[in-house]
Amino acid sequence: MNTFGTYYRFTGFGESHGAAIGGVIDGVPAGVAIDEQFVQAQLDRRRPGTSAANTARNEADKVEFLSGIFEGKTTGTPIGFIIRNTNQHSGDYDNVKDTFRPSHADYTYTQKYGFRDYRGGGRSSARETACRVVAGAVAMLVLRQVMPQCTIQAAITQVGNATSDFENAIMAVKADGDTIGGIIRCSVQGVPAGLGDPVFGKLQAQLAAAMLSINAAKGFDYGSGFEGVGKRGSELNDVFENRDGQIRTRTNHSGGIQGGISNGEEIYFRVVFKPIATLPREQDTVNSKGEPVRLAVRGRHDTSVLLRAVPVVESMTAMVILDAWLSNRNAKVE
Amino acid sequence: MNTFGTYYRFTGFGESHGAAIGGVIDGVPAGVAIDEQFVQAQLDRRRPGTSAANTARNEADKVEFLSGIFEGKTTGTPIGFIIRNTNQHSGDYDNVKDTFRPSHADYTYTQKYGFRDYRGGGRSSARETACRVVAGAVAMLVLRQVMPQCTIQAAITQVGNATSDFENAIMAVKADGDTIGGIIRCSVQGVPAGLGDPVFGKLQAQLAAAMLSINAAKGFDYGSGFEGVGKRGSELNDVFENRDGQIRTRTNHSGGIQGGISNGEEIYFRVVFKPIATLPREQDTVNSKGEPVRLAVRGRHDTSVLLRAVPVVESMTAMVILDAWLSNRNAKVE
Amino acid sequence: MNTFGTYYRFTGFGESHGAAIGGVIDGVPAGVAIDEQFVQAQLDRRRPGTSAANTARNEADKVEFLSGIFEGKTTGTPIGFIIRNTNQHSGDYDNVKDTFRPSHADYTYTQKYGFRDYRGGGRSSARETACRVVAGAVAMLVLRQVMPQCTIQAAITQVGNATSDFENAIMAVKADGDTIGGIIRCSVQGVPAGLGDPVFGKLQAQLAAAMLSINAAKGFDYGSGFEGVGKRGSELNDVFENRDGQIRTRTNHSGGIQGGISNGEEIYFRVVFKPIATLPREQDTVNSKGEPVRLAVRGRHDTSVLLRAVPVVESMTAMVILDAWLSNRNAKVE
Amino acid sequence: MNTFGTYYRFTGFGESHGAAIGGVIDGVPAGVAIDEQFVQAQLDRRRPGTSAANTARNEADKVEFLSGIFEGKTTGTPIGFIIRNTNQHSGDYDNVKDTFRPSHADYTYTQKYGFRDYRGGGRSSARETACRVVAGAVAMLVLRQVMPQCTIQAAITQVGNATSDFENAIMAVKADGDTIGGIIRCSVQGVPAGLGDPVFGKLQAQLAAAMLSINAAKGFDYGSGFEGVGKRGSELNDVFENRDGQIRTRTNHSGGIQGGISNGEEIYFRVVFKPIATLPREQDTVNSKGEPVRLAVRGRHDTSVLLRAVPVVESMTAMVILDAWLSNRNAKVE
Repeated sequence: MNTFGTYYRFTGFGESHGAAIGGVIDGVPAGVAIDEQFVQAQLDRRRPGTSAANTARNEADKVEFLSGIFEGKTTGTPIGFIIRNTNQHSGDYDNVKDTFRPSHADYTYTQKYGFRDYRGGGRSSARETACRVVAGAVAMLVLRQVMPQCTIQAAITQVGNATSDFENAIMAVKADGDTIGGIIRCSVQGVPAGLGDPVFGKLQAQLAAAMLSINAAKGFDYGSGFEGVGKRGSELNDVFENRDGQIRTRTNHSGGIQGGISNGEEIYFRVVFKPIATLPREQDTVNSKGEPVRLAVRGRHDTSVLLRAVPVVESMTAMVILDAWLSNRNAKVE
Repeated sequence: MNTFGTYYRFTGFGESHGAAIGGVIDGVPAGVAIDEQFVQAQLDRRRPGTSAANTARNEADKVEFLSGIFEGKTTGTPIGFIIRNTNQHSGDYDNVKDTFRPSHADYTYTQKYGFRDYRGGGRSSARETACRVVAGAVAMLVLRQVMPQCTIQAAITQVGNATSDFENAIMAVKADGDTIGGIIRCSVQGVPAGLGDPVFGKLQAQLAAAMLSINAAKGFDYGSGFEGVGKRGSELNDVFENRDGQIRTRTNHSGGIQGGISNGEEIYFRVVFKPIATLPREQDTVNSKGEPVRLAVRGRHDTSVLLRAVPVVESMTAMVILDAWLSNRNAKVE
Repeated sequence: MNTFGTYYRFTGFGESHGAAIGGVIDGVPAGVAIDEQFVQAQLDRRRPGTSAANTARNEADKVEFLSGIFEGKTTGTPIGFIIRNTNQHSGDYDNVKDTFRPSHADYTYTQKYGFRDYRGGGRSSARETACRVVAGAVAMLVLRQVMPQCTIQAAITQVGNATSDFENAIMAVKADGDTIGGIIRCSVQGVPAGLGDPVFGKLQAQLAAAMLSINAAKGFDYGSGFEGVGKRGSELNDVFENRDGQIRTRTNHSGGIQGGISNGEEIYFRVVFKPIATLPREQDTVNSKGEPVRLAVRGRHDTSVLLRAVPVVESMTAMVILDAWLSNRNAKVE
Repeated sequence: MNTFGTYYRFTGFGESHGAAIGGVIDGVPAGVAIDEQFVQAQLDRRRPGTSAANTARNEADKVEFLSGIFEGKTTGTPIGFIIRNTNQHSGDYDNVKDTFRPSHADYTYTQKYGFRDYRGGGRSSARETACRVVAGAVAMLVLRQVMPQCTIQAAITQVGNATSDFENAIMAVKADGDTIGGIIRCSVQGVPAGLGDPVFGKLQAQLAAAMLSINAAKGFDYGSGFEGVGKRGSELNDVFENRDGQIRTRTNHSGGIQGGISNGEEIYFRVVFKPIATLPREQDTVNSKGEPVRLAVRGRHDTSVLLRAVPVVESMTAMVILDAWLSNRNAKVE
């Protein structure tokens, strides 16, 4: 359950207010140069406080690699790593101990497990996505070596109803004491034709699972997606043509994937995120006895997950693409 | 790759024009009454020719169970089954043997595997979804016994831009010699709180993977989804309240899932499907040498996948919900 | 549970007296020539009645491939197959319906599942090993193409206490109205160094799991094994030497595996099998109410599993070796 | 590859001379009391230096739990832990950097991965078994709560050819500048009937895989095993009888497992271990260029793995038994 991937497998652990978060990356081929500064730089991208639109809480997320790397290269054995939790104020959460915060996982975790680690959401906190960024960064370093022409780039395309001026849009919502969601678009260039599997292992199915596993994600589409719903087959079919000796499609409504397998065109998809559930205002809710209470959440919190979600989307994408590449090595006998 | 699920595991096989399609269902608890007529009835729902808007090709899909059932009950051992392929006209496909049909898997399969079974799309054909319906029907029979209050119901909510009069909308497109997609909404009622897992096993991630693995699916969202993107946190948060002694949410923008785990409310989601790529008109494309050719596909084909996709959506949903139920049995020691 | 292997995955189904047994082989690379006669010949090797020392029950085990093969070659999609059960005399088992046969799975299955398919042992019957032979034969055909120098050969080395004259030893036990076990040794030549994984995926761990999953197997050892227990490190260490420009070991007490990974020498191991539990004589036992009864099993049965186990041992070995080969393709980036 | 178990899953990482070893335990039900002192005590049992017959190297193995435990109880989320490596003398290994130690994994790792972490064997070192002891101790704590009558006890039954006076036997070999192996027998009492799965998931297959994954293990048998090979069916069949209202077997040649599933009797098995390959004397070998060299390994090393293997055998057994218990919760619908 806490493992992602089939060949390149990341197993994560950790709660927001425990001693540390971390994970194990298994299935990394030997001989990949690991640039630890690149990994740290990726981690810094999802850090709060790097934008005025983000919370100022200063987490110094430092990844410590514990195994699987020798003299700067992967050895083929599992890469263990941890990120210490610092700057925890567990006391901030005493008032939510017996209260179910609206649209959080407090109620569902309690129903599932009988009790919960109430400090900052425990395992349900988006804090665990820091580990995904580490695993994604290592995947990017493998891809850099085995598929150097491949680029993965995510960007915010919508904040609420705004399709530009995103920092201002977020600041305006923050000024209202509210939160906001939006859409991130991710583009993968340079993937050769042939990655992905038929049926359940379709590339879009793996990407969808990856994206919907990110906190606050509410939907995924690729290629023509939801927006193409009004169009007909004759409008959406991607006609093949010979372009400079290469078989290419004239249009790319397929989003670079046909029959679950990459066709060599740009892979692109969208992920929609809801507003953060932690509001800087009082809300109605109930406590564990089912009694109505008023809840005011303390501490400083983000207004939108979007800024921090961008590197997470890219990281999950890198893991999916690398997994497909590793799987593909066994597609044919030769 | 051809296995779906973790506890309730369906492994499928089969091409559209081979001897048979079928599969193995593993992880079914012993003692479940198997109503074979119900399974066959589900299979009949996805059959072509049951609507004027569908193709008249008459496939008599008859499921034959081969193991795992004794005296009408599951034994706990794997359920093997096959559906013979009949009425195959492989000859119909001679003209596509060396041609890449636009927006089909012909090109990508050839790139991945070096060659392909060109008869009717082979493994990439939607024919394999018949096996998913069998596995889904068995899952429904298990759910009927372990979670009798649970209902799973999918329905078309949009065809192209039309939000009603769906058969007519399809017939109109057919008259134009074109194809059309649309949206299916699925509703799951009666799921208790506590199903689903944190992080990668979030219920929505499993549902998204299930839905995006269906042929022609282009997107998935749940709860407020893509349509709620303009709304703020204060509008979308689902406030808890005590309703008749039960903890319930006042609204259900969460789509019945919080932190990846069911909260007892209705689980609902949407899946968008593209138009069928097989058009009843000539199209440009290239052959395997990259030479431009004109392609006219023979045979009778559907105008929209929507009618046949409804039972497939329900089947995949049943498998996900049952898998989560089985997983949940080990969530606590007691 | 009914799936074996990680990359080359065989999922089996079927009971001894159901309609058919069969399975799905997933993860087979595309482009492998499938010689169906070879598969059938392997299947014939484990057939009863091919030796005077075996039972005369005449099962015509005919494998029918249903998918995954096109124009004589694997397509990369799953290979489904069935073997119809014929010549079933379920009536033979009415007297064991409520009785627990000694050293069979009757009691344990009933305890686990609440009831059991009592016809011929159901899923616990060695009949399912026919499907392993099919999956193993396909694995051998892949190995023939990717590792042509590799040979896998199992042979009986002991029947009871006899170390030669095996058919006579079995006939003598049969004449006594008894059954007998023994030892099979398997030798794998021509495996290059580097197959197998560290820690839990050690080649010997996978071979041990494969062998102990065969009905009536009671033990496994490799290299110096149990017999070398009295020897010291200085006697058992395999010193490396340069033989004709190749790094080889002077002795091979390691059984061709060091640190879980093949070293290029002969891989060899032993499997011990117990006598068949179905005795041609009356035995004490209890019925499902716990009342003492006398049991006489009808029908003709083998005196020893050994003759039929030889191709099963080879088949499981082929699956393990191929799985390790497929895994190894991703050991390094280059 | 570095994950063990299906429901109770342990994923390990770490090399003997890296920063730390550790792992993630996933699938632990919520609500289990974790006695960290018990875990540490188990870890201390495999520590060197606790017996005169062991090496005096003083590793202070301290486990640090990082997640998954809150207020002394498991939360249902993954338990991450690390054990820092201390007292490393990597310099000791400079002379083996380019040399393949006989009967070690140096050569095979280099062949598989292209290079190796030569410090103390890296991932191939038995040091990783410390993490198995942690994961096994946690499994024991779960078992203590869900199956309190269950006991798991391993003991040395043979050192070389000696069947008693084991410490003296080891000291004698040490005095000769040599190493020695032997046999460990493990007994599991109090397991109810019904644990284990048919076919590939047979309890003995899982135990065999578990045991053969331990460094230096060369064989496994259970029940009558290799020693019963001379006996006939009439001698080895375990007749059922009604003992005080319970269905029991009169003898237990089955080793508590029939058809892969526990029958309520004592489960017992043997594991044979080879002598340690690191000899306190010079040996012939070759370097990475294939040139003959003389090798003298520095540092202090154990004379036998047996003393330290006992808690490892028990730990792996606990994980297998718990995994079977978790699996069994879904054997029936009720």
